[in-house]
Amino acid sequence: MNKQLLFVKRPVGAADASTWELVSNPIPEIEEGQILIKQHYVSLDPAMRGWMNNVKSYIAPMEIGSVMRAGSVGEIIQSKNPKFEVGQYVAGTGGVQQYAVTDGEGYYLVDPKMAPLPTYIGTLGMTGMTAYFGITEVGKIKEGDVVLVSGAAGAVGSVVGQVAKIKGCTVVGIAGGADKCTYVVEELGFDACIDYKNENVATKLKEHCPKGIDVYFDNVGGEILDIALTRLRRHARIVICGAISQYNNKTAIKGPSNYLSLLVNRASMQGMVVFDYADRYREGAMQLGQWMAEGKLKSREAIYEGIENFPETYNRLFSGDKKGKLVLKVIE
Amino acid sequence: MNKQLLFVKRPVGAADASTWELVSNPIPEIEEGQILIKQHYVSLDPAMRGWMNNVKSYIAPMEIGSVMRAGSVGEIIQSKNPKFEVGQYVAGTGGVQQYAVTDGEGYYLVDPKMAPLPTYIGTLGMTGMTAYFGITEVGKIKEGDVVLVSGAAGAVGSVVGQVAKIKGCTVVGIAGGADKCTYVVEELGFDACIDYKNENVATKLKEHCPKGIDVYFDNVGGEILDIALTRLRRHARIVICGAISQYNNKTAIKGPSNYLSLLVNRASMQGMVVFDYADRYREGAMQLGQWMAEGKLKSREAIYEGIENFPETYNRLFSGDKKGKLVLKVIE
Repeated sequence: MNKQLLFVKRPVGAADASTWELVSNPIPEIEEGQILIKQHYVSLDPAMRGWMNNVKSYIAPMEIGSVMRAGSVGEIIQSKNPKFEVGQYVAGTGGVQQYAVTDGEGYYLVDPKMAPLPTYIGTLGMTGMTAYFGITEVGKIKEGDVVLVSGAAGAVGSVVGQVAKIKGCTVVGIAGGADKCTYVVEELGFDACIDYKNENVATKLKEHCPKGIDVYFDNVGGEILDIALTRLRRHARIVICGAISQYNNKTAIKGPSNYLSLLVNRASMQGMVVFDYADRYREGAMQLGQWMAEGKLKSREAIYEGIENFPETYNRLFSGDKKGKLVLKVIE
Repeated sequence: MNKQLLFVKRPVGAADASTWELVSNPIPEIEEGQILIKQHYVSLDPAMRGWMNNVKSYIAPMEIGSVMRAGSVGEIIQSKNPKFEVGQYVAGTGGVQQYAVTDGEGYYLVDPKMAPLPTYIGTLGMTGMTAYFGITEVGKIKEGDVVLVSGAAGAVGSVVGQVAKIKGCTVVGIAGGADKCTYVVEELGFDACIDYKNENVATKLKEHCPKGIDVYFDNVGGEILDIALTRLRRHARIVICGAISQYNNKTAIKGPSNYLSLLVNRASMQGMVVFDYADRYREGAMQLGQWMAEGKLKSREAIYEGIENFPETYNRLFSGDKKGKLVLKVIE
């Protein structure tokens, strides 16, 4: 049988257990051109909250009754597609289910001997691509830049900061809690990390970045974006990657009151969606993989188990109760 | 005697008559290297409100007791500077006074035979430069773009829209009142103009720009910026030139709630300050002057008289009670 998590109710505010329904269906028969994947891991991402809203966005909203959309990685166990062989591993958007049937569109081969499977939906997957292209192409970092990263202990932020360090930048993170901040500085090698739950971010930012910041990579929005705006250097770039602090709002999103700092400092704020770099994923993954092999880049996954535990695992994205990339093992 | 308007009180909210004091002082003697200018016209600009605040910005705040800062144009009536001759006309930042003494730094020669003097502090001055470099360099317009301009009947907006039309764009303005909208469409040649005082901006914007907008040139901020954000096309550019709707706020500025549209549409919001293009003013003025000569670009000034009428004239910037560039004649 194929355990599947269906998206059954659009949440208002935070998603809770009533958002999904776990069902069991027979493992489907594949048709000519298709493959059957035994899915090992699914990816949990803050962006999921946006997909649940019935609004026009960079991707179609999820339909009620569909399998919960998610990145995934697994093993091909049947193939009627000449491009794929049984025994190969692939990553794609297989959704929160134990078995996925696909024609292979959007799936790519991964090698479990080169890196653990969860890494292919983390640092070597969309998460890593978001970080890499976001900070290099949108943030346009150059040696000597002062870079601020929110969500610094998170999946994207941790890679952003490490890439910026590799590129010769001074990097300051923002994360929630002393434990995460220690991890960000001592394990990931950021120059400093501000604990937004226990420190005054504005004061600490002034202290750590006395001359201001050249690039702010924003994963959180809200107050922290507003504070970052007060510290921009001339021609600074803000990369808008996400706004997790606002995703569960029941009312309008808080816009950045200090946006006129963009004028004063001739700065820019630019949004990004990783899909735009699809034709360069290979290049990004090669570069990140090389840095991992050289020991310059650390990839960490927070792996939980059991497809039935998806709702509580998902909540860790918003409670912050995890470090690195959040992944769920959905099958034995 | 030299009538001067001194800046004597930092306003909270809107500036009123108590912000300034009109004084009379002897016309100063000039020293070696200086010139004495009989100032004919001074420029009135929304940016003045920002200069009154005691905050770090793109220019130092005005000091209490100083002559009110303003762009100006006038005639040299004495010169002890070999670079300038009596009888020449110059534009610069002479402030709200009838006579200005300067070493000439930041002043440039203008020719009253080529264009009326007020034009040199309007379309051929900082105002025109802001519009020209803002829409071409920051907005990066190209033929076929759909361009939205707020403050469309104003000094900067009217030039922005006309330049965009010359460059082959579809141009929609936003202005306050049917009279201004008629002016913007019939006199300036915009494709359409939305009357934000009497029409639903969101509805009209959808109607006039069914496929969305490529560039939004923002002079006003507030609600209109938020509405524009909902209509961005992919890779759209927002030029942050000003935010007149927010300048007199006594509380925090309203940040754009819809800023995540930048993410969805991979769009950017970039601030600009005209000073950054100082080394290209000559090029900008030549281009705008040529278009004026060819009848492609209309320049309009709203000219008022009497230095003592500065406060009420200044208020027209915010009440919207004028079209085109606001100018005050300060001497007979």
